[in-house]
Amino acid sequence: MHMPQIRQHRQSNQLRQISFQSDFTKFATSSVLTGCGDTRVLCTVTIKDGVPKFLTGTGTGWLTAEYRMLPGATPQRHEREVLKLSGRTQEIQRLIGRSLRSTLDFAILGEKTILVDADVIQADAGTRTTAITGGYVALVQAIHQLIERGELSASPVVRQVAAISVGLIEGEAFLDLDYPEDVAADVDFNVVMTDNRELIEVQGTAESGSFSRHQMNELLDLADKGIQELMTIQNTEIDRWMQSKR
Amino acid sequence: MHMPQIRQHRQSNQLRQISFQSDFTKFATSSVLTGCGDTRVLCTVTIKDGVPKFLTGTGTGWLTAEYRMLPGATPQRHEREVLKLSGRTQEIQRLIGRSLRSTLDFAILGEKTILVDADVIQADAGTRTTAITGGYVALVQAIHQLIERGELSASPVVRQVAAISVGLIEGEAFLDLDYPEDVAADVDFNVVMTDNRELIEVQGTAESGSFSRHQMNELLDLADKGIQELMTIQNTEIDRWMQSKR
Amino acid sequence: MHMPQIRQHRQSNQLRQISFQSDFTKFATSSVLTGCGDTRVLCTVTIKDGVPKFLTGTGTGWLTAEYRMLPGATPQRHEREVLKLSGRTQEIQRLIGRSLRSTLDFAILGEKTILVDADVIQADAGTRTTAITGGYVALVQAIHQLIERGELSASPVVRQVAAISVGLIEGEAFLDLDYPEDVAADVDFNVVMTDNRELIEVQGTAESGSFSRHQMNELLDLADKGIQELMTIQNTEIDRWMQSKR
Amino acid sequence: MHMPQIRQHRQSNQLRQISFQSDFTKFATSSVLTGCGDTRVLCTVTIKDGVPKFLTGTGTGWLTAEYRMLPGATPQRHEREVLKLSGRTQEIQRLIGRSLRSTLDFAILGEKTILVDADVIQADAGTRTTAITGGYVALVQAIHQLIERGELSASPVVRQVAAISVGLIEGEAFLDLDYPEDVAADVDFNVVMTDNRELIEVQGTAESGSFSRHQMNELLDLADKGIQELMTIQNTEIDRWMQSKR
Amino acid sequence: MHMPQIRQHRQSNQLRQISFQSDFTKFATSSVLTGCGDTRVLCTVTIKDGVPKFLTGTGTGWLTAEYRMLPGATPQRHEREVLKLSGRTQEIQRLIGRSLRSTLDFAILGEKTILVDADVIQADAGTRTTAITGGYVALVQAIHQLIERGELSASPVVRQVAAISVGLIEGEAFLDLDYPEDVAADVDFNVVMTDNRELIEVQGTAESGSFSRHQMNELLDLADKGIQELMTIQNTEIDRWMQSKR
Amino acid sequence: MHMPQIRQHRQSNQLRQISFQSDFTKFATSSVLTGCGDTRVLCTVTIKDGVPKFLTGTGTGWLTAEYRMLPGATPQRHEREVLKLSGRTQEIQRLIGRSLRSTLDFAILGEKTILVDADVIQADAGTRTTAITGGYVALVQAIHQLIERGELSASPVVRQVAAISVGLIEGEAFLDLDYPEDVAADVDFNVVMTDNRELIEVQGTAESGSFSRHQMNELLDLADKGIQELMTIQNTEIDRWMQSKR
Repeated sequence: MHMPQIRQHRQSNQLRQISFQSDFTKFATSSVLTGCGDTRVLCTVTIKDGVPKFLTGTGTGWLTAEYRMLPGATPQRHEREVLKLSGRTQEIQRLIGRSLRSTLDFAILGEKTILVDADVIQADAGTRTTAITGGYVALVQAIHQLIERGELSASPVVRQVAAISVGLIEGEAFLDLDYPEDVAADVDFNVVMTDNRELIEVQGTAESGSFSRHQMNELLDLADKGIQELMTIQNTEIDRWMQSKR
Repeated sequence: MHMPQIRQHRQSNQLRQISFQSDFTKFATSSVLTGCGDTRVLCTVTIKDGVPKFLTGTGTGWLTAEYRMLPGATPQRHEREVLKLSGRTQEIQRLIGRSLRSTLDFAILGEKTILVDADVIQADAGTRTTAITGGYVALVQAIHQLIERGELSASPVVRQVAAISVGLIEGEAFLDLDYPEDVAADVDFNVVMTDNRELIEVQGTAESGSFSRHQMNELLDLADKGIQELMTIQNTEIDRWMQSKR
Repeated sequence: MHMPQIRQHRQSNQLRQISFQSDFTKFATSSVLTGCGDTRVLCTVTIKDGVPKFLTGTGTGWLTAEYRMLPGATPQRHEREVLKLSGRTQEIQRLIGRSLRSTLDFAILGEKTILVDADVIQADAGTRTTAITGGYVALVQAIHQLIERGELSASPVVRQVAAISVGLIEGEAFLDLDYPEDVAADVDFNVVMTDNRELIEVQGTAESGSFSRHQMNELLDLADKGIQELMTIQNTEIDRWMQSKR
Repeated sequence: MHMPQIRQHRQSNQLRQISFQSDFTKFATSSVLTGCGDTRVLCTVTIKDGVPKFLTGTGTGWLTAEYRMLPGATPQRHEREVLKLSGRTQEIQRLIGRSLRSTLDFAILGEKTILVDADVIQADAGTRTTAITGGYVALVQAIHQLIERGELSASPVVRQVAAISVGLIEGEAFLDLDYPEDVAADVDFNVVMTDNRELIEVQGTAESGSFSRHQMNELLDLADKGIQELMTIQNTEIDRWMQSKR
Repeated sequence: MHMPQIRQHRQSNQLRQISFQSDFTKFATSSVLTGCGDTRVLCTVTIKDGVPKFLTGTGTGWLTAEYRMLPGATPQRHEREVLKLSGRTQEIQRLIGRSLRSTLDFAILGEKTILVDADVIQADAGTRTTAITGGYVALVQAIHQLIERGELSASPVVRQVAAISVGLIEGEAFLDLDYPEDVAADVDFNVVMTDNRELIEVQGTAESGSFSRHQMNELLDLADKGIQELMTIQNTEIDRWMQSKR
Repeated sequence: MHMPQIRQHRQSNQLRQISFQSDFTKFATSSVLTGCGDTRVLCTVTIKDGVPKFLTGTGTGWLTAEYRMLPGATPQRHEREVLKLSGRTQEIQRLIGRSLRSTLDFAILGEKTILVDADVIQADAGTRTTAITGGYVALVQAIHQLIERGELSASPVVRQVAAISVGLIEGEAFLDLDYPEDVAADVDFNVVMTDNRELIEVQGTAESGSFSRHQMNELLDLADKGIQELMTIQNTEIDRWMQSKR
């Protein structure tokens, strides 16, 4: 099998090294420093009473996400977004929010709002998918804390979610692109799936050229494989953390 | 064949009525009031010399898009976005820009910037896909004007592009959703394709629940059919307009 | 009679062609695409319950206006005003608001707020006066709809209003300036009058030089004549539209 | 002669007490604390080299004005305008700028920009007209300083300008309204005139009701009288100040 | 005793000329134009019912300050801060607020908010300390007015406060720096003290180099001396003003 | 010796546990996660060519700092500062910038700009002083990298700097306050010193009450002791890191 120069120490269908440092900070309800290769995203979860206006009185809760990149996360310092958020930042935080909301039964949560902050400490591509994968772990931990404290009687988490990027480089499909691969890719997909192997979100973009239905299917097969592996790693970390809390 | 109550006068695989009013205004380089059912988007194109900083000196051009909704476009008045654009608006204008850029060879355009303004006059869902479909027609017309005026020697338009929405309502696939259908849909896709039947962008989101790979393929088949029809209608309008300019 | 080169197909005391396309859009309470020569302003009216804080509990209503120019309305693309509105835009929307408020008895309206949006689709000077003249027609139609729907028992419209520009070019007075005339004018007036031939607003500015009381009177005579004609055309359109609604 | 209750110690055609404190501050090129009754506006002028982009290379200069109200200027503290200027503030600073520009031959000034700051220290109505009347005095003084320092060889001031408000209260015309009168007025005019008795700007607004051509003429006669008096007082102050500089 | 060139007509331990023009404006509750050498700060005080959210229901009041520099206050025109306040401005207004709050027993004030506006009319260094020293005088006067009007039964002013700058120039300590001295100073302190000779705030900064504990003590001795003198002058003005109110 | 309840496991003159994780991220020039008790500040340094306008052409460099708190750093989620920075944030980042600039000879640096980002990951008081102490370590490391890469021939670092807070609680002086102590403190000092035991910045504030000269001296003695200890720890980390780079 021919493999472009760009990926040398990983198979084209292989994930980067995944890592979770749970309880990375101590004041947020939960906090997980999530690593995917050299990408590091700090996912913290806070839960507060009350919901946005459009839900008040409905008895159902809400989840919203914020995403930001620290200035030192990239080789060229990344300027902070002050007066307004870039379109890219807004797209990403909306995607994170939708993906994590798909795991919850908000009637069980009741009128509470879950805030997920994804702060990129180090960026080597895949920051939005890492935020979703790590955000799920932090979300489960935060819910667990609320149940422990008696603030919630049952868990509203009804599905598991994880996300990964896939892309076409010189016509070949690759799983979990790092930054040089992301730059080289002609087509770039972000895929979000649940534990019943259903899709929550598929965002595919041709940065140059276009892609066929056949290629798209090949990419989705790769993403499916990667996400199954991510879910196993998520569950391992959640179990380990639960044990440590006893 | 069973069809949910929601669509009564159209087949599930049928487009809404498409219309183009070219030269709707007279001062912009080109201007097309594009209709898709009750959705009306005014697409105007302006072309100016010069390119953004990151392209200066490369000899290649650029295209950028702005999208906005007029306050009277919806039954509930839509407040203007003043201090900052919503995430939704930014996502949409980035999508329109990427889609229309996919049709152009920027080396042929040279260091010019094409600005596409998509202003929604009336909103009955599908505003972003209507903006892409109508924006392509306005783009071709604007390029034609530049060639006529001798400001460009060859057309940089190398591909045709069109876009449509598809969605799942109670598990059934529908083409080209209007507003009540969009609200009822559990899964919503926006699909952008070129004339060689390749994909440029696929954005699929489960608003509630999730979707299988099988359902996704069904939706993409519908979108493919709709986009082929849109391209025929685009070409008919472009031909008519070209004739009228002789 | 000598006439400067600048106006060739109209008498100096002649209005441009006036047109109203009522029901231009279908979701706003009323919507009139108003034309004055090549100027096109889309006037839409929305009416909502409640009033600004300073009127709450008084039993009287309010009307407010927003004015904006679409980017493609002018030969040079008109940049959207994002972070802040220009002084010119704010002046114009305040003028439109004051002029249309002069037609209403707010005690009859009760605690409702009327929002008039004037979006300039095509700009060939006279956009603010066209917005007032067309806004009046849309206002009457919106009120009519509310009465039809039983949301209002009597019409609060107690006066008719229309507006026109006049100006001095090389010392000669002209009615209803188009863009080239506006640029050439040394003195520029916007005049708003009611159907009892009284003035609501007179805004006269010497862009270069100054003007005498005598010249001012000449200009106001012209404006008075033009506004009488506009009122006849407004009434014709309102009658036609009323007939069409039966 | 009948006079409404509202004005008791002044004739209806009488100005309030006018005062100028020239050189009120020492670091600006010129600075005049201008009083009109209880209204106090600090007018300072700065002149700098260079002109806005649209004038660069034309050899002609520019004048621009800023207007702001100090929080303590009114009985109810006036909140500072932070993120954006109100429409009222922008209208006023544009009016001040236009009025003062009418006095200058910018070809004589050359490529310099004159900045006039009008800061309202105490507000009892008539702040914009006081800013124009006092701004003219400060402008002449600033120009004089430049000539003295040899930075300008001839004065670009070719006209004198002053401004006053007039209004109708219960149908009667009044000159130079103070705050209670301004509140009571149904019609309110700001009039700007030059020393050759020509008009530069007429802004008349019916706050309630409307006004006839006859009433308008009566108001303009009053304004004309008041402005002639203001010009005498301006000249007296300028002469006094010139003497003091020798 | 050696004295650097920079200060020629004052001893190194001597204050500049201090002046208070109480009742400088008539609409604010109190208003004092405070002079310190060529520095002039207009301090106005407004008192309104209600307190910020975090104090509502506590029965205690609040004081907040705003600080701004007029454009003409400096030889080079000082641009107004529009979209956002500079860090310097915010630091200063927070310092003024804290300093003046230290004089008050907020339980006696009750749920009222005192707003102190410090507008710099002319800037020759020491504007923040002048604002505090003058702000105290205006504060006492405003409280007095409230008591006179029966809106307050006892005075919440329990301490007197004043402030001064001191600095090191070429190793020598100077009291009350003017602008040329401030520019020349290597170390710059702002000191706020109460009438019991206790400190409220000490802000010392080495602009270049550093300073020893010994030098710091020398500077604080100077500041202490200056502040004792300022308090005598404050009291003289307050007494004079009280007499004038009888 | 009596000690208030508030501090139980540390002497009043004892620092919290200090820690440095150098090379915490890999893309910035240097990056140190600095801990002081439970406070964690990520200090990253980037160096770029060019200087702000006011230094261009002088041959000397510049250093500027940004400070921000992550939302999850505190028990109550800390809202991101979007439209504008709070006064507190601006004060802190100006203090960090001044303190770190005091260590550099900018003529040796040449026309480069050093950007120091201090992002608070976890906040238990003392975040600004931790940012300075850790920022110094990151600064030395970044300079070292530039010298290694041959982009700088000599080190511009001419002084060492560290900072600590001290405070009075119920009249007793404490070194290095944590959050509960900070809340309880009546007087709060931030002290910045160099390795020659000279002061760079002293900021002392009485949050309630006031403080005497004697108390101030006691606090500065404590700060001096703490800063000497910090400098030893800084040097140990720098040496360790240097060794690791060989």
